[in-house]
Amino acid sequence: MARTGSLGTLVSVDLDREAEVPIHEQIADALRQAVAAGHLQNGTRLPSTRALARDWGVSRNTVMHVFDTLTGEGLLASRVGAGTYIAANQQADDEDDGAATPVAPSPASTGYPFRRLSARGRNLVTQSTGALTEKPTPFMPDVPDLKSFPMRSWLRLMNEVTGRLKGNILVNVTNAGYEPLREAIVHHLKVTRKVDCHTDQVIITTGSQQSLDLVSRLLLERGDPVWIEEPGYIGTRATLIANGCTVYPVQTDHDGINIETGQRSFPAPRMIVTSPARHYPLGGRMTPARRSQILAYSRDSGAWILEDDYDCEFIYKGGIRSAIKSQDSEDRVIMIGTFSKTLLPSFRLGFVVAPKDLAVDFARARAVIDRHAPILEQMVLAEFMHRGLYAAHLRHMRELYQSRQACMVSVLKATVGYQPPTLELESGMHIVLPLKDEVDDRDVSMTLWERGATARPLSIYYSSKAKRKGLLLGFAAFQASDIHSHGPRLTPLETLVNRAD
Amino acid sequence: MARTGSLGTLVSVDLDREAEVPIHEQIADALRQAVAAGHLQNGTRLPSTRALARDWGVSRNTVMHVFDTLTGEGLLASRVGAGTYIAANQQADDEDDGAATPVAPSPASTGYPFRRLSARGRNLVTQSTGALTEKPTPFMPDVPDLKSFPMRSWLRLMNEVTGRLKGNILVNVTNAGYEPLREAIVHHLKVTRKVDCHTDQVIITTGSQQSLDLVSRLLLERGDPVWIEEPGYIGTRATLIANGCTVYPVQTDHDGINIETGQRSFPAPRMIVTSPARHYPLGGRMTPARRSQILAYSRDSGAWILEDDYDCEFIYKGGIRSAIKSQDSEDRVIMIGTFSKTLLPSFRLGFVVAPKDLAVDFARARAVIDRHAPILEQMVLAEFMHRGLYAAHLRHMRELYQSRQACMVSVLKATVGYQPPTLELESGMHIVLPLKDEVDDRDVSMTLWERGATARPLSIYYSSKAKRKGLLLGFAAFQASDIHSHGPRLTPLETLVNRAD
Repeated sequence: MARTGSLGTLVSVDLDREAEVPIHEQIADALRQAVAAGHLQNGTRLPSTRALARDWGVSRNTVMHVFDTLTGEGLLASRVGAGTYIAANQQADDEDDGAATPVAPSPASTGYPFRRLSARGRNLVTQSTGALTEKPTPFMPDVPDLKSFPMRSWLRLMNEVTGRLKGNILVNVTNAGYEPLREAIVHHLKVTRKVDCHTDQVIITTGSQQSLDLVSRLLLERGDPVWIEEPGYIGTRATLIANGCTVYPVQTDHDGINIETGQRSFPAPRMIVTSPARHYPLGGRMTPARRSQILAYSRDSGAWILEDDYDCEFIYKGGIRSAIKSQDSEDRVIMIGTFSKTLLPSFRLGFVVAPKDLAVDFARARAVIDRHAPILEQMVLAEFMHRGLYAAHLRHMRELYQSRQACMVSVLKATVGYQPPTLELESGMHIVLPLKDEVDDRDVSMTLWERGATARPLSIYYSSKAKRKGLLLGFAAFQASDIHSHGPRLTPLETLVNRAD
Repeated sequence: MARTGSLGTLVSVDLDREAEVPIHEQIADALRQAVAAGHLQNGTRLPSTRALARDWGVSRNTVMHVFDTLTGEGLLASRVGAGTYIAANQQADDEDDGAATPVAPSPASTGYPFRRLSARGRNLVTQSTGALTEKPTPFMPDVPDLKSFPMRSWLRLMNEVTGRLKGNILVNVTNAGYEPLREAIVHHLKVTRKVDCHTDQVIITTGSQQSLDLVSRLLLERGDPVWIEEPGYIGTRATLIANGCTVYPVQTDHDGINIETGQRSFPAPRMIVTSPARHYPLGGRMTPARRSQILAYSRDSGAWILEDDYDCEFIYKGGIRSAIKSQDSEDRVIMIGTFSKTLLPSFRLGFVVAPKDLAVDFARARAVIDRHAPILEQMVLAEFMHRGLYAAHLRHMRELYQSRQACMVSVLKATVGYQPPTLELESGMHIVLPLKDEVDDRDVSMTLWERGATARPLSIYYSSKAKRKGLLLGFAAFQASDIHSHGPRLTPLETLVNRAD
């Protein structure tokens, strides 16, 4: 029962609803082929999603997802007023991403026509990690439980601190942030991460992304080699490349980033970015041996270490390991932390622990970049921490997330017969479900999406071709009853799971 | 009654307390000479302000102000843990700033030792406009009345919007900002600035400084020529230079930026930055003729116009003129606006109206730079605007500021016998008191500061040597009674005022 749709008046698409290849993939393929064959020229505008959905007899969501996929591949682009159009020249260089191939930003161009982005602007835009998520549906990862946030206490504190203001709202604020909050963070890092730092070193940012951008701009020259974890957090890679650095994806296993592999394959880095507390996305925790090794290598090679302390708060078993920064006698480690996962992402609060001798420069740079982070939230968070409410909230969320993790494990066992390794269950807000190598996890992710479940493909966290396949299944934001009731949506994965992994 | 102090064991400073030259200037001069003569080597650490104050028999504040002045001149620098030290190699190139000399950023260097800032990092740091102000003292400019802000209504709205959340805090938020706030801004611009723009074009930022940084990164290539107003807002110049652009200060009079002067002296710009609603700091309002001229020149030369709509809200007489953007048929004008002066600077809320065809790129870039602005304030502001509370607040503040302006005028007449020209009183939050050409307004500013009054020197807003001298006296943040009671602190200015101006 094939159906022929017409892409405006441009190209026809044959859909076979009985084929094994899902409809959205058939459409995406047809568009890819039409571009490759030159039937759809660069700049050609596509009809609206509504019109195409009607033409093809599919849901508008399906069309939108095809657009998203092809936009991600650089084949489509959209502009306000111009709709969606073919942009084949912006095609991502995904195919050239060999395992040991560095990812370099676009070269700077001299002399470019009016209305075009600058070279660095293009780097920013092409590295974008895309739009924000809507209301989270199970099993979206990286989202904290929004309902458990003590909004009433928070607002009470806000009432209290604003009542004390009396027109001196700028007191105690520098470009580096609100002094009592910086003190609270120093104390928190001392107690929870064994990190000794001075209040002056703590620079309040609007989250990890801004911290990464700030560090990149201040410490990294365009062209500087930077090692990142492979696989690793997409936002890190994006910021580094957008700022003109050349990133080298260094193989990372459950013990942490593999310095020896990096040394063998890549030039001496100017910076090594790592997430030792809990590797993102695989969940490993860096061993003491690796920590010593990375510090020693940093000393020998003159590299900075950027310690992304993401997810250090949700450790359920095996004890919390102190930060690399705690052993950093030479002040080579820059630490970044975020409150996006422990409070609400919408507050936009994070911090950098800057090197002692450069802390003043970090603060001064903020004056030019954006002055400082918003103050009211900083004042409230300072109170929240000083009164012990933050520590209590973390304890509460840790228990809650651990119980939800157990629920997720039982659902995975029941629906797809998978039991995650013990190590991965020691911490974190998601579980990685490994899929067989031959599976395209992006397709699987889209199929699940159409079934009402969100699962992020593992392969997108790899820069090189050797991608492991899998799905990130988040459990933190969802009640046990939702995890159970949405569980059956995962049933189609049963034959795809890689149980040998 | 000369007193000899010793700068640690390094150099002696002779202070003459009966000389006309103020003590702080004597100290600063002695330090400048010691550096010039090589007695104080680069990197030499100075004793603490406390120790120096004791040595010299002056107040610690005086020492701190000398440090501030010399840090501003690039002669001193400070580091956490290293205190304050001589940094003569970072000396500002103030002396070379000829009238028609562009100000270029430091060249990029290749290969630099560990622990140093990157070239762009140094540009950010050296362009820094410095620390935030403490509790405002009269007559600090650029500060809105903090006590008049309706904090109770604001918190009630926050209670209300957070009560509606129910765990879907991410809904309606994209990297460009909270949709209903963007709609409210579109409506506000339509009504107050005659600007027609689409919601998609409005990108919520954390204020003008971030807006400028975003526009610079996205649209300007390193080395691009940019025209700025002379005199003009320091933050603009700082961001452009920090981002590698070469800025050309174009003479600006009460009719606005002088395009003809720019054309005669400078290369065709890639962007023209202007503040037509109310020139900062002189208070002129761009005439319709100049508006047409700047639009025509932008068309001919292929330059963007960056319209900084700062201070457009506080127009007291002569009617509000629409924005240049309202006549922008070719979408060449990028508009930036801020809520820092109309609400509270601490909220960090501002916006960019991006060109239609690049709006999506602006939003995408935010994903890499800092994700998005904090959401709760955006939600509250959206409600505040939609319910008409913002318009009411603006009306209230306009009346309040106008009455404070009148009070300031009477104080200036009584204390220093100066009457500002009518044109300058049509708008704004400060009055510029012109001083005689031979006066160093930075010294006068410091003398006033020691007398308990804040007045910012006019000369710092000039990039070229031909600096007019004067003081910016803010009145918006201070009650009439404070303006009156602090008035006498201005009395020493009586002989310095340039009444011919």
